Amino acid sequence: MKSVVVVGGGVAAKGFLSAGLALHKDTKFTFIRNCEKSPVPCGIPYAFGTLENPYDNISSDQGLINKGVDLIIDEVVDVDVEGKLVKLAKGNDIAYDKLVMATGAMPFVPPFPGKDLKNIEVIVKDLDVVKSQKDKIMAAKNIVVVGGGFIGVEIADEITKLGEKNITIVELARNVLSAAFDVKYCEETEEILRKKGINVLTEVGVTEFKGNDKVEKVVLADGTELDADFVLLSIGVKPNVDLGLKMGLNGDGRSGIIVDAYQQTSNPDVLAMGDCASKVDLITGKPSGIKLASIAAREGRVAAANIFSKTMVTDPKGVTSLFSTSIDGVYFGATGMTHEQLVRENIEHEVVELSTIDRHPEALPDASEMIGSFMFAKENGKLLGCQIRGASQVAEAINFLGYALQQDATAQDLFVLNYASHPMGTASPNKYLVHMAATEMLKRMR
Amino acid sequence: MKSVVVVGGGVAAKGFLSAGLALHKDTKFTFIRNCEKSPVPCGIPYAFGTLENPYDNISSDQGLINKGVDLIIDEVVDVDVEGKLVKLAKGNDIAYDKLVMATGAMPFVPPFPGKDLKNIEVIVKDLDVVKSQKDKIMAAKNIVVVGGGFIGVEIADEITKLGEKNITIVELARNVLSAAFDVKYCEETEEILRKKGINVLTEVGVTEFKGNDKVEKVVLADGTELDADFVLLSIGVKPNVDLGLKMGLNGDGRSGIIVDAYQQTSNPDVLAMGDCASKVDLITGKPSGIKLASIAAREGRVAAANIFSKTMVTDPKGVTSLFSTSIDGVYFGATGMTHEQLVRENIEHEVVELSTIDRHPEALPDASEMIGSFMFAKENGKLLGCQIRGASQVAEAINFLGYALQQDATAQDLFVLNYASHPMGTASPNKYLVHMAATEMLKRMR
Repeated sequence: MKSVVVVGGGVAAKGFLSAGLALHKDTKFTFIRNCEKSPVPCGIPYAFGTLENPYDNISSDQGLINKGVDLIIDEVVDVDVEGKLVKLAKGNDIAYDKLVMATGAMPFVPPFPGKDLKNIEVIVKDLDVVKSQKDKIMAAKNIVVVGGGFIGVEIADEITKLGEKNITIVELARNVLSAAFDVKYCEETEEILRKKGINVLTEVGVTEFKGNDKVEKVVLADGTELDADFVLLSIGVKPNVDLGLKMGLNGDGRSGIIVDAYQQTSNPDVLAMGDCASKVDLITGKPSGIKLASIAAREGRVAAANIFSKTMVTDPKGVTSLFSTSIDGVYFGATGMTHEQLVRENIEHEVVELSTIDRHPEALPDASEMIGSFMFAKENGKLLGCQIRGASQVAEAINFLGYALQQDATAQDLFVLNYASHPMGTASPNKYLVHMAATEMLKRMR
Repeated sequence: MKSVVVVGGGVAAKGFLSAGLALHKDTKFTFIRNCEKSPVPCGIPYAFGTLENPYDNISSDQGLINKGVDLIIDEVVDVDVEGKLVKLAKGNDIAYDKLVMATGAMPFVPPFPGKDLKNIEVIVKDLDVVKSQKDKIMAAKNIVVVGGGFIGVEIADEITKLGEKNITIVELARNVLSAAFDVKYCEETEEILRKKGINVLTEVGVTEFKGNDKVEKVVLADGTELDADFVLLSIGVKPNVDLGLKMGLNGDGRSGIIVDAYQQTSNPDVLAMGDCASKVDLITGKPSGIKLASIAAREGRVAAANIFSKTMVTDPKGVTSLFSTSIDGVYFGATGMTHEQLVRENIEHEVVELSTIDRHPEALPDASEMIGSFMFAKENGKLLGCQIRGASQVAEAINFLGYALQQDATAQDLFVLNYASHPMGTASPNKYLVHMAATEMLKRMR
């Protein structure tokens, strides 16, 4: 019986364990997590609003335990890489044949003056903390969310469901969501948030927090002072690499633990995956800082297939943006690079922007507009990125497009592609965004 | 200026014309249709119920006309292939450089005794006819739909919205929808229909219609006599090839006008596409009888790219099932071959059946079960077919899967694939059907 030990118990760990159980016999799997109740990470924003009980956002461990996986709630303090032993804070040493690092990421907090005042908190993947934060928010009047990425925007949107409150989002970049979307989509999101009464401030940073014991004011770079009873920081995360570096693995606090396409680290008996592991961008080939639960799950599967030897040689060998979100019921999806990112990388491209109606005929109830922006490489028409906005089917439509992008699809590939049209579920056969975009790109290439 | 003339004005014609306008300069496009108001074909069932005014199901010609396309409402009586002239019933001859056949299909009516009685009608792509049929159905009490394919099932479901009526579906095969779905999904559909009060009769054929002048009874093979004020026949369609055969094109009434992968017929100046054109099955390589608006649109695009010469060499070179439907708000999607079809073709395969919840955490409102069946080739894990059932995002999820199938995806390809997870739009990162199915298949292959 081989021993495989996973340090971590989030999405990457569970993706790894599910696939590992399916693909390997005669293997004992153990995972070690430092908190009792682990949430569904993408569900955290909804634990603040839609879900009355934040503990409903639990990611159950029971399925894995039932299949014979051992879960240890403890802190890994060190790893003896020579003796192949995991050292725990409380429990006995655990021997491993293969060790898998899934230590995740931790919130990044800039050295703002006053950042240690009470009621300034970060999002962490621990349900007890989420519950306590929700209680504080419910009791608060003035809430400031610093950072307008997905988590910040979704949480602000969710907090509107907790009654009359002053909610402000402070975002340093030109727009909220600007890491994933171009201006048009970001501005639409901001408009939705503002209509719900959220104060959205962009292109302005926080300089200081003020208060006595508890936070009372958030001071911005333009001099504005916002009243604040509670501040949530959702500025970004950095990989948890302390243990990995202590073990002598290649890596750093910015890139994470360096891995190859099989999730192997510099130590042949150690793999790493998820937010703590390095990534390569599918389009640029450069290091990528993207951190998503879906990518963590994918890396978990890849690591599981290749744990004892590199058995599964696959493409794609890099990661790319593949997101969706729902803001007040409006769905946004994005994959690949934005126009802005492509300009920054000096990648020559065409932007095709268009819209359609997601039912046919358009007179059907529930018909709504779907808009899309498609970025194609100028020379060969390869799909480089796509953003769409519409009703709930955006969440799966972006998977279709993300798959196409991962398969190196060109405008010509999308042009000839067959798809399923249905009155109650899609645009009409000649008005499907993908084909319209492909046709327009082929026109420009001629 | 080159002259391209299209015989037909449905989905294939419009797909061709839209793409043709984009891809070719200095070309005059003309299309000839024998009815004034052409519907969105897949929308016809909804013209019977959801759409109060059947004319809301119109497929507008205005966009094409505005771009300089000529629409002629007339009957093409002959084509002089030597002189390259289209002969019209009323208008002048029209000269062409390239002629495109998009004559569609016509309903197939077996020689049932009594089939010519009044109020026994077929579905045709003419809005005036749809309107008159809806009026008759509204006035009727007992309605029999013969044929439980997509159109039959959707129309029966829609007619329930017109008030208290006795509606019966008569299907000769083992189940409704059995051309696209395996038993489980068909039975679920039948259960939904029965709960709505529709009488669903399967594995029984019609032997005769009785009545004086108007239909009164539908007699079934088991001796049952159903009262009937109105009968809709939706048994199937056959390609409209009369004109094509008269022109000397290769083809027959079963396969349609024979075309190659570029939609070229046996005459170098004539292309054909849509329901009137032959098709090859992507998986078996055999002739395929599948007829879908989405395939017609695809063939229109392919023909447009290749009209003057074979410029766009592409894959896939065949067609496969790629459907979705919504029955009383429950969505079903299918692509590729069913288990039953694979058995019939002696293609060795594994069937992976599973289910998930389409939101995460599962406690979120609107979370519903999505079930799926995945057929993989036994030896190499290639995806051969897939059926899913769930909420509205099924309509786009099946496009993702249909694309994977058209790209020859294997279980391994799907296993490593990245996707976008979002609480309000998809299953959780480790419970996405596609990955679960791929993992299970890889397990079976080891």
